[in-house]
Amino acid sequence: MYAPGDVRVEEREDAKIIEPTDAVIRVTAACICGSDLWPYRGIEALTGPTPMGHEYIGIVERVGDEVRNIKVGDYVVGSFVASDNTCEICQAGYQSRCIHNVMMGSVGTQAELARIPLADGTLVATPGPPDADLVPSLLAASDVLGTGWFAAVAAEAGPGKTIAVVGDGAVGLSAVLAAKQLGAERIIAFSRHPERQALAREFGATDIIEERGDAGAAKVKELTGGYGAHGVVEAVGTQESMWQAIHSARPGGYVGYVGVTHGVELNGLDLFFTSVHLHGGPAPVRRFLPELIQLIWDRTIDPGKVFDLTLPLDEAAEGYRAMDERRATKVLLTL
Amino acid sequence: MYAPGDVRVEEREDAKIIEPTDAVIRVTAACICGSDLWPYRGIEALTGPTPMGHEYIGIVERVGDEVRNIKVGDYVVGSFVASDNTCEICQAGYQSRCIHNVMMGSVGTQAELARIPLADGTLVATPGPPDADLVPSLLAASDVLGTGWFAAVAAEAGPGKTIAVVGDGAVGLSAVLAAKQLGAERIIAFSRHPERQALAREFGATDIIEERGDAGAAKVKELTGGYGAHGVVEAVGTQESMWQAIHSARPGGYVGYVGVTHGVELNGLDLFFTSVHLHGGPAPVRRFLPELIQLIWDRTIDPGKVFDLTLPLDEAAEGYRAMDERRATKVLLTL
Repeated sequence: MYAPGDVRVEEREDAKIIEPTDAVIRVTAACICGSDLWPYRGIEALTGPTPMGHEYIGIVERVGDEVRNIKVGDYVVGSFVASDNTCEICQAGYQSRCIHNVMMGSVGTQAELARIPLADGTLVATPGPPDADLVPSLLAASDVLGTGWFAAVAAEAGPGKTIAVVGDGAVGLSAVLAAKQLGAERIIAFSRHPERQALAREFGATDIIEERGDAGAAKVKELTGGYGAHGVVEAVGTQESMWQAIHSARPGGYVGYVGVTHGVELNGLDLFFTSVHLHGGPAPVRRFLPELIQLIWDRTIDPGKVFDLTLPLDEAAEGYRAMDERRATKVLLTL
Repeated sequence: MYAPGDVRVEEREDAKIIEPTDAVIRVTAACICGSDLWPYRGIEALTGPTPMGHEYIGIVERVGDEVRNIKVGDYVVGSFVASDNTCEICQAGYQSRCIHNVMMGSVGTQAELARIPLADGTLVATPGPPDADLVPSLLAASDVLGTGWFAAVAAEAGPGKTIAVVGDGAVGLSAVLAAKQLGAERIIAFSRHPERQALAREFGATDIIEERGDAGAAKVKELTGGYGAHGVVEAVGTQESMWQAIHSARPGGYVGYVGVTHGVELNGLDLFFTSVHLHGGPAPVRRFLPELIQLIWDRTIDPGKVFDLTLPLDEAAEGYRAMDERRATKVLLTL
């Protein structure tokens, strides 16, 4: 990305092993994330031409001298944060906050080759080369599914539970799927878009609410005997959506928030009297990858359906435009 | 309380059964809470002369027609919120947010007799009349101990855990005691007061930090290999203390906040990138009362040590003055 609105696909120097714990992978599919739109829209500053992308699957081409578990030829999935997977934070399941974490956005995976730091900790090998129809789902696991899954776990989705999901983008829809897989009894999706409502229902939503904000939260209370949902996923990140999520939860309920917050200020006293559990942040996708890969491999889940536009990497600029103009929810780039 | 700074002890009409689920108790001990100081200091408006107090132990004098479990003559402990203990919120352990909750502050327990709504749900009988030396501890269970205990549970205090406690008032000190009982390996108390430091150590603190704010949080990281505490109790409620608590926790760690928040605004993005679990609010003391009463009865814990001034009810005005002037941490009123 050269500047807001200016994305180019060009020849660059091949990715190399720099640290002995690195791997270099041949990317077989990447995608464009909602967060890639921030610099595209000029909301986040660019300091010059910047490689883009942090979601990826691919085949290992080379490994550094200290890489032990990942082998050349492995088909691998990683997340948007490289992590050692051995520090206390990783071991507790918060690999996105690993003490040695490297944000993959600084590496750029919308490319033929990508350097993956801390390869042993970061990458998870699939059981073998995937069938073509599994590729979108494996790519989804790399970020949006992993993020939605974390949010559903943070919302304590499980048997007997009513879970509400604020946000009908790729992450919100993935959270619906996750809540269903985790056994939630009732899943309430907030959405005003017919196609997204349909996919939400396909992923397991039992109820759809079109109202937003406190009117939406009031509707959740109405549907739950006045109590509110046991757990709520927040996958937008605005002031309205955060309070919509918090007010949709019952006292003692759980709010899992993964929408990167923009301009949100939470009044302490208001929050105090909601009595909710609030947990979120950059999702530790790595924690869930082995399980998610298996569920995809077994064709138990099909999260790849969140992609509604597929383009070759060469046409990445059109992919950005389509997402910016909301013609696409989530774009898959093939290589 | 007639006005800020104006507390009077006077004859009033005896408390009566109003609802058939009420009990009337003869209060044997009550106390003055930090929150009673808000109207005393003019921070909270008074609409006229107001009965005060929400912490109490006593003997049941009368019960309404629908009271089934609590009997006349029972020695009972209740919390600052009356609750039915049967609704879904209560059953999930959030009795302070019972759908039928009644704040006891609206009743006033700094009195010889007090009406207790929802008696069956609210009151817990002790095994019998307590020895005199157990009275302060049973009274502490009614509010500060129960609140500190909830905060320590919200901070996930347990074996192998390092727990930090922000706030060295009666609640913070009770949280230290709770963390110790819950099995925490290391307990870090923030305090600058020699007497409170001493009581914190007696209650189980292994480390004391005198720094505040981010300097205090940095000290916690230093003491925990750079990671931060597994869990942190926040028992103050200011902007500085909230962030001190949040920044003292490691990513994925737990912050239990029970200091009633005043003027606190939490920036969403800052909170997002801390990756902490945040949970708090008015403590569901009722959830813990049976266990706490037993621990006190067995003389396993002695939370009554948080009281540093005991006065007869007649001298309540002096009790308020002593707390307002910080000559006392916590005042017990005898009847």
